[in-house]
Amino acid sequence: MNKRDLLYEGKAKRVYVTDNEDIVWIEYKDSATAFNGEKKAEIAGKGKLNNEITSLLFKMLQENGIQSHFLKKISTTEQIVQRVEIIPLEVIVRNYAAGSFSKRFGVEEGKLFDRPIVEFCLKNDTLGDPTITEDQIDVLHIASLEEIQHLKRKALAVNRVLSDFFRELGIRLVDFKLEFGKDFSGEILLADEISPDTCRLWDLKTNEKLDKDVFRHDLGNLTTAYETILERLGGKQHA
Amino acid sequence: MNKRDLLYEGKAKRVYVTDNEDIVWIEYKDSATAFNGEKKAEIAGKGKLNNEITSLLFKMLQENGIQSHFLKKISTTEQIVQRVEIIPLEVIVRNYAAGSFSKRFGVEEGKLFDRPIVEFCLKNDTLGDPTITEDQIDVLHIASLEEIQHLKRKALAVNRVLSDFFRELGIRLVDFKLEFGKDFSGEILLADEISPDTCRLWDLKTNEKLDKDVFRHDLGNLTTAYETILERLGGKQHA
Repeated sequence: MNKRDLLYEGKAKRVYVTDNEDIVWIEYKDSATAFNGEKKAEIAGKGKLNNEITSLLFKMLQENGIQSHFLKKISTTEQIVQRVEIIPLEVIVRNYAAGSFSKRFGVEEGKLFDRPIVEFCLKNDTLGDPTITEDQIDVLHIASLEEIQHLKRKALAVNRVLSDFFRELGIRLVDFKLEFGKDFSGEILLADEISPDTCRLWDLKTNEKLDKDVFRHDLGNLTTAYETILERLGGKQHA
Repeated sequence: MNKRDLLYEGKAKRVYVTDNEDIVWIEYKDSATAFNGEKKAEIAGKGKLNNEITSLLFKMLQENGIQSHFLKKISTTEQIVQRVEIIPLEVIVRNYAAGSFSKRFGVEEGKLFDRPIVEFCLKNDTLGDPTITEDQIDVLHIASLEEIQHLKRKALAVNRVLSDFFRELGIRLVDFKLEFGKDFSGEILLADEISPDTCRLWDLKTNEKLDKDVFRHDLGNLTTAYETILERLGGKQHA
C-alpha cells in the first residue's frame, strides 16, 4: 500500500489516495480548531491521540457489529480506510443537553433527555454548518427520506454501544457527531473519526470535561484530557 | 360582549379578556417589527389591513373545513376569537425557497420545492425564536410527537387551501407562519393571524413582493402592498 496524491485536507486530517482506488490513507494533524475555524492552535501530539482513540473505537464498534470505513491503523498518526463519498451531513446524537443545544434553547448543560435524539447539520463551512431538518435534507436532495432514517438508526445504534462502553470506563457520553459516506457500491458506511474532537466526554463522577470543550473554552490542557481518554480505553483494552 | 383587562400585548396585537372566559378580544396595532424586534415602525392603517385580511382568510378557511379560533370581526381593527393557550411554536410552511431558508442554505429565492415542507421555530424572543426539530420539541416537552404530526397535517391542509385560493387571485404563496393553541377542552385550534405579516405573497406574474418583506428590506410602501392583497381578496369576495 503506497500513499499517493493528497485528495483532501480538512481541519484535523489529510486524506491521500493510494494505489488501491477503494482505499484512502488518512493522516491525523496536530491542529485544533473550534467555532467554525475561528479559534485555531497547533497542539503537539493531538494527531497521534485522535488516531489511536479513533482506531480503538472503530475496532470496538466492529466487534459489536457496527461496520465503518476503518481498515487499519498503520502508524501513530495514520490509518487506512475504505474510500467513501462523504454525505455532507453532520449526524449529531445527544444524550444530555450541552453545547449548541444548551445555548440555543437555554437549557442547563448536563440535563438528561428522556431518550437520545439525533440532529443534522449541513456540512458547509461557508454557511457555518447550519442545522437542517429531515424535510430540508430531502427537498435539497442531500439525502432521501429513506437514507435519513437509515442514518438515524445507525447513529442510535452507535450511541447504544458507545454509551455503554464509555460508562464502563467511568465516562459519560454526553453527545457526539458522526459522518457517513457511500462506498463504491453505494452502501452507507460510518466514516470520519470518533474522538474527543467529535464527542463530549465527561468524567462520570466529577463531570470533568475530557474533550474538545477543554480547548473551546480554555478549561485546561487538551493533551492531558485526551490522554486520560486514551488511558482509560487502553485500560479497558488490556483488562 | 365587553372588553376587559389586557391579557397580553404582542408586537402586532393586544389581547383582552372579555366577560366570557372562553372568548378574547384582539386589537390589531399599527406597529410593524422585523428581525426579532430590531427594526420597528408605526404604520398608520396596518392594524386595519391585517385585521380585515386575517378575518377574510379565517372565514374562507372555515368555509373550506379548516377550523380556527376566529369568531367574528367586530370593528375595523378588532376581532373576537376563542381563547386558546398558544403552543409556543411557529409552524412554518414553505412552498418556495425564500427568507431565512435561502440565507441559511444559500438557495436562490423563488426556487420551487418538490413538495411543501413544514418547519418549527420555538417562540421565544430572548432566544431569538430558534429553529427546532421535532425530536427537540418532544424531549423539551413542548409538544408530543403525536401533537407535532397533528400540527404538520393541519399546516399542510391550510397550505393546500390557501395556495389554491391565492393562486386564483394571481398571488404566489411562497411561505407562511402559523400558530396553534389549545382550547379549554384541550383541542388544538389554528390561532394567531394569517396576513401579509405572516405570509410571503408574491405577484404571480411580476414576482412583486406584497408582504412584510417590503418593510424588512425597504422595498417600497407597506400599506400599498397590503392594500393590494386586501383589494384582490375583496375582488374574490364580491365575485
